[in-house]
Amino acid sequence: MPRLIECVPNISEGRRKDVVDAVVAALRPSGVRVLDVQSDKDHNRSVLTLAGDETSLEAGVLALFEAAVARIDLRSHSGEHPRMGAVDVVPFVPIEGATMKDCVALARHVGAQVAERFRVPIFLYEEAATAPHRRNLEDIRRGEFEGLGAKMQDPLWRPDMGPEAPHPSAGATVMGARMPLIAYNINLNTPDVEVAKRIAKAIRFSSGGYRFVKAMGLLLEERKVAQVSINMTDFKRTPLHRVFETVRAEAARYGVSVIGSEIVGLVPAEALIDAADHFLRLERFDPTQVLERRLREEG
Amino acid sequence: MPRLIECVPNISEGRRKDVVDAVVAALRPSGVRVLDVQSDKDHNRSVLTLAGDETSLEAGVLALFEAAVARIDLRSHSGEHPRMGAVDVVPFVPIEGATMKDCVALARHVGAQVAERFRVPIFLYEEAATAPHRRNLEDIRRGEFEGLGAKMQDPLWRPDMGPEAPHPSAGATVMGARMPLIAYNINLNTPDVEVAKRIAKAIRFSSGGYRFVKAMGLLLEERKVAQVSINMTDFKRTPLHRVFETVRAEAARYGVSVIGSEIVGLVPAEALIDAADHFLRLERFDPTQVLERRLREEG
Repeated sequence: MPRLIECVPNISEGRRKDVVDAVVAALRPSGVRVLDVQSDKDHNRSVLTLAGDETSLEAGVLALFEAAVARIDLRSHSGEHPRMGAVDVVPFVPIEGATMKDCVALARHVGAQVAERFRVPIFLYEEAATAPHRRNLEDIRRGEFEGLGAKMQDPLWRPDMGPEAPHPSAGATVMGARMPLIAYNINLNTPDVEVAKRIAKAIRFSSGGYRFVKAMGLLLEERKVAQVSINMTDFKRTPLHRVFETVRAEAARYGVSVIGSEIVGLVPAEALIDAADHFLRLERFDPTQVLERRLREEG
Repeated sequence: MPRLIECVPNISEGRRKDVVDAVVAALRPSGVRVLDVQSDKDHNRSVLTLAGDETSLEAGVLALFEAAVARIDLRSHSGEHPRMGAVDVVPFVPIEGATMKDCVALARHVGAQVAERFRVPIFLYEEAATAPHRRNLEDIRRGEFEGLGAKMQDPLWRPDMGPEAPHPSAGATVMGARMPLIAYNINLNTPDVEVAKRIAKAIRFSSGGYRFVKAMGLLLEERKVAQVSINMTDFKRTPLHRVFETVRAEAARYGVSVIGSEIVGLVPAEALIDAADHFLRLERFDPTQVLERRLREEG
């Protein structure tokens, strides 16, 4: 099977389309496949979804840095989403024929070159983190670009690679390796956002819930629907169906039902197949029974 | 996207491993991909799952006939599964980049060559059928090899191609085009096979059930578990989850529950993803959100 790694760079530009286009154009000659580009004006941020092997991703990510660092200046950047770098976060994700270990090695290898060539400090996170307090993106990014110079003077927050101070316009980058992330929202038949907030609290890791769930409650203003907005950070160990069923049970406690759920962006087929396996109560189902997978393996 | 057609020849040999191996070896040089070979001793039958484009499948199926007709003699064949040919059934199935119409054309083209080269009569079935009474495999095969000579004297049962009488040792072959078939069994917490038979009757097309369901009730002797054994002949129009839920509801009427279900052999990812979509109540889910599919399309 060909080695396939996903890479999801987040860049701090979601308004100037010409800048986003230039960054994407810069990385295309590397041979990486550009699966998705989503720009958000409110967040002033774009999320790129790339796929390739180690060689093409290394070339692609370096080209992306070259284009983004030249065009994005955080000193004049504002948006709703927290950020500390022109290229803010670069996770590598094992998909097929590559392991998490391969992705950690790739993050270290590419990070070292970025630090060297562009003088951008690199913080390694998640599976590539060098200390427990540096695993979590939110902890690394707390204080954002504006607080980064002061934060980096704390020995706990020295970068893993590159200069000891932020790049003047491009800040610093968080790079690492993680499981595929699934953005999964569950909608409730109530406009009461408090119900969604309580359910979010019940299921998220940080307040005692599932190990690989981040969640918050919010209100979809137009639909007048409360939503539990979830990031599933390891769908193999905390699966979609378990979170869905738990939200359903917690909602019932408030006399509320689940209207529906939604997946934002891309999802690995395996996450949905695992859900089908659960609800259909499949006995002895083996993922190699999936026709498309058999075809890829034999190919 | 490359054109991809699946072909699932059923041959009437499930006991002599050397014969099955020789048939598989004969078709390999054609370049078709052999995804699966399952031999059943009780049925005395093997099911091959092949994949390729029109050119490689044409060469592969002709090589399979050459090897099988030389080695399998139905005059000395017995098994639990009904059969009328050494190569009993050859369906072509559109998977990706090919339509049902392409598969019908391929069945006619390959069938004509088999009839010509091996003097084996061909009956076209399912989407390739030339008359409504000849769509259904069971109707064509009723009477089996032993009754075939007499049956073919009826003008209604003249073959579509080839000699007007069966091949002396290889009988006749049913060839055609159909949707992917999913072999799907649902197990009940009762040893009472009558319950499974009644549920099968409730869900199958022939007795008033779903359009694309064939089903029968049987007893798993070792487990003492009654099973509804189902063939899903078009999972897009009669989906897995609907059949599962209907069996669950019908079983409840007898005070019986569903223990589990099982998929035998290969299943298209889409069939399971559709089930996840249903049970997770996904809103606006688009199959192009599946990462692996996006990769194939961009590839």
